[in-house]
Amino acid sequence: MTSDKQISSHGFCTHAEFQAVKVLNDGFLSLDDPTHPANLICELCRLFYEKDWVTGTGGGISIRDVKGKNPNIVYIAPSGVQKERLKPYEMFVVELPEEKLLRSPNDCPEELTKKYKYKPSACTPLFMSCYQLRDAGACIHTHSQNAVMCSLLWEDKAEFSISHIEQIKALPLLKHNQSTGHVEKVGSMQFFDKLVIPIIENTPQEEDLTDSLQEAIKKYPNTTAVLVRRHGIYVWGEDVWKAKVYNEAIDYLLELAVKMRLANIPTVKA
Amino acid sequence: MTSDKQISSHGFCTHAEFQAVKVLNDGFLSLDDPTHPANLICELCRLFYEKDWVTGTGGGISIRDVKGKNPNIVYIAPSGVQKERLKPYEMFVVELPEEKLLRSPNDCPEELTKKYKYKPSACTPLFMSCYQLRDAGACIHTHSQNAVMCSLLWEDKAEFSISHIEQIKALPLLKHNQSTGHVEKVGSMQFFDKLVIPIIENTPQEEDLTDSLQEAIKKYPNTTAVLVRRHGIYVWGEDVWKAKVYNEAIDYLLELAVKMRLANIPTVKA
Amino acid sequence: MTSDKQISSHGFCTHAEFQAVKVLNDGFLSLDDPTHPANLICELCRLFYEKDWVTGTGGGISIRDVKGKNPNIVYIAPSGVQKERLKPYEMFVVELPEEKLLRSPNDCPEELTKKYKYKPSACTPLFMSCYQLRDAGACIHTHSQNAVMCSLLWEDKAEFSISHIEQIKALPLLKHNQSTGHVEKVGSMQFFDKLVIPIIENTPQEEDLTDSLQEAIKKYPNTTAVLVRRHGIYVWGEDVWKAKVYNEAIDYLLELAVKMRLANIPTVKA
Amino acid sequence: MTSDKQISSHGFCTHAEFQAVKVLNDGFLSLDDPTHPANLICELCRLFYEKDWVTGTGGGISIRDVKGKNPNIVYIAPSGVQKERLKPYEMFVVELPEEKLLRSPNDCPEELTKKYKYKPSACTPLFMSCYQLRDAGACIHTHSQNAVMCSLLWEDKAEFSISHIEQIKALPLLKHNQSTGHVEKVGSMQFFDKLVIPIIENTPQEEDLTDSLQEAIKKYPNTTAVLVRRHGIYVWGEDVWKAKVYNEAIDYLLELAVKMRLANIPTVKA
Repeated sequence: MTSDKQISSHGFCTHAEFQAVKVLNDGFLSLDDPTHPANLICELCRLFYEKDWVTGTGGGISIRDVKGKNPNIVYIAPSGVQKERLKPYEMFVVELPEEKLLRSPNDCPEELTKKYKYKPSACTPLFMSCYQLRDAGACIHTHSQNAVMCSLLWEDKAEFSISHIEQIKALPLLKHNQSTGHVEKVGSMQFFDKLVIPIIENTPQEEDLTDSLQEAIKKYPNTTAVLVRRHGIYVWGEDVWKAKVYNEAIDYLLELAVKMRLANIPTVKA
Repeated sequence: MTSDKQISSHGFCTHAEFQAVKVLNDGFLSLDDPTHPANLICELCRLFYEKDWVTGTGGGISIRDVKGKNPNIVYIAPSGVQKERLKPYEMFVVELPEEKLLRSPNDCPEELTKKYKYKPSACTPLFMSCYQLRDAGACIHTHSQNAVMCSLLWEDKAEFSISHIEQIKALPLLKHNQSTGHVEKVGSMQFFDKLVIPIIENTPQEEDLTDSLQEAIKKYPNTTAVLVRRHGIYVWGEDVWKAKVYNEAIDYLLELAVKMRLANIPTVKA
Repeated sequence: MTSDKQISSHGFCTHAEFQAVKVLNDGFLSLDDPTHPANLICELCRLFYEKDWVTGTGGGISIRDVKGKNPNIVYIAPSGVQKERLKPYEMFVVELPEEKLLRSPNDCPEELTKKYKYKPSACTPLFMSCYQLRDAGACIHTHSQNAVMCSLLWEDKAEFSISHIEQIKALPLLKHNQSTGHVEKVGSMQFFDKLVIPIIENTPQEEDLTDSLQEAIKKYPNTTAVLVRRHGIYVWGEDVWKAKVYNEAIDYLLELAVKMRLANIPTVKA
Repeated sequence: MTSDKQISSHGFCTHAEFQAVKVLNDGFLSLDDPTHPANLICELCRLFYEKDWVTGTGGGISIRDVKGKNPNIVYIAPSGVQKERLKPYEMFVVELPEEKLLRSPNDCPEELTKKYKYKPSACTPLFMSCYQLRDAGACIHTHSQNAVMCSLLWEDKAEFSISHIEQIKALPLLKHNQSTGHVEKVGSMQFFDKLVIPIIENTPQEEDLTDSLQEAIKKYPNTTAVLVRRHGIYVWGEDVWKAKVYNEAIDYLLELAVKMRLANIPTVKA
């Protein structure tokens, strides 16, 4: 869109916004570096919008700055905003493990926020669960119709599963290490492996999903994603690009699974 | 498209058009401000074209300048033009409640209009109904195939309904306030709420839909949209972004509903 | 794509191509004018590629310069090239009614053509039929899957038809004028009108379709399009934008018709 | 995406990367020439990502520099990277027929590679098979869902076939020349020809597909593609553009075949 093009000379900001942010001298932003987490959240939310994974104000991505000076720093988008129109200065920043608030977009000058009062994304406790329980580097939440349709076509099941599809090889082979107590990546899944993704039931409030998401994460040490019935999916990875790749591979498999199911082809090969 | 890129330095206008409009000193345009209603109509119609919500010359969006000096001013696109190629100077401007014509694109110099005689969009009386009866800030009309397919799959029904899908939470909870006589937004819909959208029958002339649209708006105080059988949908909201978000959420639900219906999954959970 | 962006400063040409074409002083090109037929063919073929209407080297558009000094001049793309990568200097130009060749891309310097020997599109006699028999201003040919699927789902029929869908109103109401012998546009189709598009059988050679296309055009004076079984569709209009709008409206209706047929909903309302 | 736009002034590189690559004085790169194989791989992988043919890190394209000084030079993308974000300096370069390594991205300065250790794409032996056995100029591998679905809908068959669809004419007519022992292109397929594409069974390791791919290539001298069950497709052509056109035409036919099969329409006309 033309107005997007107009703002491209300063990343995701207009010239005026750029000047305002520069004056802030905000250590949690770096408008000129497209690989900075605050900028990547903006870029990826636009991509996810084009792919129909986030729509309305639903869905999004949180990134932990795993390659930065302080890898405990987490960037979170605000709640209730159009994710494809996010600006880097709208991010919340918290520090793990206490989730201490280091930066709020509400501290920005009014010329930037237009007096809007931001709240962190309702997904925050769910993203935090992935950081805390799995040491994730980024976590994606989508309302993908493929995810919702699989949760409906497997309505009476607590697990979605598929095997013998090449794209499964894009997913990590995870193992619970008894000595460290951590889930560790020990390789990639194989073509003939059965990918199992737990499905949890949706709750009226997004934050109320936290308990069942954490349970599923613990009960399924091999998974890098959790489906939420009639809602969508959470996918995480070691860093932002791994999370993106896992989400793309899983959505591909969910899309294929819907087609297979409707054509009466079993998704798990006997 | 390249020619779009060529014109991006002055928003939606070529350099020559920009100069011509500047000379006009037209108080109803502001080419440099991408958030101005006349520019947003152009931007959003392009987006809606990419999303296949407007095609041919059908569909569009009208915006009331709720944050401007005069919130009674309404921007309307012309009829019979390709909506994804609209220019800001092609807009009609009227003032509520009398719908007094303040600006016509036919007053532009011929170098801009190329002698084309513009008429306001045929949707105008329908957009006006949303402004007058619901104090809407913007109103979207699409020929979305999901809307048409739902109206066909629910052919014998005067209502479309769906429940227990997360995306429903993007929609407003509306209540008729007995003391003020106005419909007011009192929050957001819940996951388990049943979204009900009335379906009215299509008429040969678009303006003849006005009566039944107004009836539906009055009969369904909780709705922020009306489906038109074998035609499309009207969606409105408190401002342009809310209308956009509501339209995206509803179209997502209509798309999902078609898939559910064809897979024999009830859209309303028992 | 980035390489497309690189060439955008001179329309659809790189800087080097632009210089080479300028030196040509070719009266049939006007690189700086995005509305020139040679540029519009490039722009629209890119759009049609994105919409999946042209793919591989199939499909395309021819434009008659109805608003130029000589409205008998017709621009035709070459055969066997990727239509989304066309350059304006690759066009053939012929003059009606004799179809006299006024310009061939093979006359360009080798630095432009890279010694490639161009032939006019195999659709040329079909495009010419629309110009000659209907005084069309532009003619579009696509391999749209919606067109092919309709020709398959209506396999035993020589006509596709649909009624009572709003989008039908985007199509022209055509009447054979007995006194002039011409087919004339007398308005727009109505919502309740039945749109009938003839389906002709495909032939091994594209040019061999000419006779049956001409027959269909004569037998169906009300149509602005002809479907070709297992092949695609030809759509024409008074000028390039009308042809584009008609093609969009018809493809929308064909897409909807496939969905309706598969859901056992009759496309013509009783 | 905005960050893509930011880097467009130097092709697919940021200004800093451009400077670093320039200093390299690397004879296998030519950042300013968009038609150079290293740049075309980047451009086409982005296109294939948008078309959903490559996703996650799967799929890609290899190009042999058939029009360069040394037509035995082959460009190969690295394994395990997001193909739509490839940079030209990340390519491996090998020389046929010994597949001698001429260039490795691992020789780039660390500021470019960020210490990442690249490996050639796991498809390399399969691409090489097409170069060696068919003298291909480029080879495309996709995980297209249409390819996977056809391999599932034809689960008990070792061949996919379709006839009497116009798009078949985009594919080459190949004949085994007894005297030279080579497969040669002798024209284009005809509308009524039956396109037959062999389907080989998938293997746990991509390189283990080599034997069965080579067998299929030898057994089916008329084919320019091989389907891999539950995996995707390999398509090659005389040069990069022919490979792209063949891939587009075949994917179009596979997409149509899925629709025909699900609608109980035979893909081969009796």
